[in-house]
Amino acid sequence: MSSFSQPPAGKFVVREVGLRDGLQSIQTVLPTQRKIEWIQDAYDAGQREIEVGSYVPARLLPQLADTAELAAFAKTLPGLFVSALVPNLRGAENALESDVDLLLVPLSASHEHSLANLRKTPDEVVADVGRMRAARDASGRKALIEGGVGTAFGCTIQGEVKESEVLRLMQALLDAGADRVSLADTVGYADPASVSRLFEKALKLAGERFWCGHFHDTRGLALANVHAALLQGVARFDASLAGIGGCPHAPGASGNAATEDLAFMLGAMGLDTGLDLAALLRLRAKVTGWLEGEPTHGALWRAGLPKTYPAAAAHA
Amino acid sequence: MSSFSQPPAGKFVVREVGLRDGLQSIQTVLPTQRKIEWIQDAYDAGQREIEVGSYVPARLLPQLADTAELAAFAKTLPGLFVSALVPNLRGAENALESDVDLLLVPLSASHEHSLANLRKTPDEVVADVGRMRAARDASGRKALIEGGVGTAFGCTIQGEVKESEVLRLMQALLDAGADRVSLADTVGYADPASVSRLFEKALKLAGERFWCGHFHDTRGLALANVHAALLQGVARFDASLAGIGGCPHAPGASGNAATEDLAFMLGAMGLDTGLDLAALLRLRAKVTGWLEGEPTHGALWRAGLPKTYPAAAAHA
Repeated sequence: MSSFSQPPAGKFVVREVGLRDGLQSIQTVLPTQRKIEWIQDAYDAGQREIEVGSYVPARLLPQLADTAELAAFAKTLPGLFVSALVPNLRGAENALESDVDLLLVPLSASHEHSLANLRKTPDEVVADVGRMRAARDASGRKALIEGGVGTAFGCTIQGEVKESEVLRLMQALLDAGADRVSLADTVGYADPASVSRLFEKALKLAGERFWCGHFHDTRGLALANVHAALLQGVARFDASLAGIGGCPHAPGASGNAATEDLAFMLGAMGLDTGLDLAALLRLRAKVTGWLEGEPTHGALWRAGLPKTYPAAAAHA
Repeated sequence: MSSFSQPPAGKFVVREVGLRDGLQSIQTVLPTQRKIEWIQDAYDAGQREIEVGSYVPARLLPQLADTAELAAFAKTLPGLFVSALVPNLRGAENALESDVDLLLVPLSASHEHSLANLRKTPDEVVADVGRMRAARDASGRKALIEGGVGTAFGCTIQGEVKESEVLRLMQALLDAGADRVSLADTVGYADPASVSRLFEKALKLAGERFWCGHFHDTRGLALANVHAALLQGVARFDASLAGIGGCPHAPGASGNAATEDLAFMLGAMGLDTGLDLAALLRLRAKVTGWLEGEPTHGALWRAGLPKTYPAAAAHA
């Protein structure tokens, strides 16, 4: 077991996914040196979990072709828990080679979204996870395998996705050898009531093995959904600096929860994230400068921190 | 007592404040005929509570100079509960003359914001409410008087606003004769934890006389805050079409909760708002067209309704 198998007690984690979920869906290809600067600055702002990229062929996602290089850099930062997406066994083998701390395997609970996005059925992805688990165990590496169940609240292609199917796939992922499971509202179909219902059942099913909530702000509900998940006991959320990102196979699915807005909400609620909001806002300004012309999101950057923000004085 | 003293059982109300809180803070002066069209369309989309304007001198807010005319029109729509802001006794007398259903008296819990915005201390506003109550009772009208406690979560000028002061002022408003009291996060300083704490106490204090939650989306938390208030039992929220509006005396305080996004969240949660989302989105397109060049907000209009949205099929 890695020392990172559990979050520090009482900590709330904002996992940065902008370098993967964000950059994969925009045109600009950020130079590796800038991504390294992003990772370093995010680390300096207190982020301790970063998804650095995706182990996919460079011809499919040229924006993420330098994932192994970024993983190598990220692994030099003490205490940084490095995640990467792996779509298949080959990707997992490469990620294990890079010695990342967590392999995120995306699965779409929507059969139709799964075929369109991954060219596999959900159960074929479950079978992949079994093979990845065997490869991980054989490699001697300690990387965790996270099965991330996407389109968990509905799908732009298929429409409804049944709760029972989402829960069946979570259980199947755990049975196949996933160390952790997560839920993602890939296309912005969740609302606080559906989040409360599904997360309650998911946490009951997975217990300590439940890892992360991933919400897109497509219809403005990302932070309300985070609030609903928080109340169910979730302590780790994906977010993307400036809310960049979406899903190329989900029309209108633009915008992850914005890292800085989510971090602000958690901090304002008095939850310990270890994050320096002023530093995150400076990083946001830098990265959105690099991405000029690309759609960016979020509200805090415009208004700034409230006078009353707990940590504002300390970081002013 | 008016027949409108309580919301219909099980109903959740989105009170439209765009015609007042929205239009007062933007440059464009909408012609009366367009405001009437807005009120009619909002009514046709199912809105049954609309704040039509503010009884202030036209030289101070020329955007709202036609409030009496709008109130007269709005009162012709069967079942529409017509609100208007009144800053002082003279405004209240004019509003009673118009036979509106509710007089909203704004009070700032922040002493400094109160002086800057209203040129009165909070307790002077409480005294005004006493005089308005006497005028209402003498007039024979049935209009309710709502004391709206603003900057209830902090203030851009003063910084912290104490919960105890907010609660003291709510009690003072009720003691002075307000029929209803409300809480407003005028400048976007609230978070779901502070909302839960303060609304729990406010509802305990005011009981059935608690009326409405009013959240600005200045830092992206409006809908998360609504969710927190919903869980405390609040069933009525202010919102502004396309999220227009803010507070002229609160720097950076742009954007009410957007009517269409809030209505979507409530509807998606299965709560009965009586609202036709497709009609609201059409109205949003019309009004933002009239307000071209002004800042507008919201997310739903860009992505559209989910395939799974409960009422989408019925209105398609």
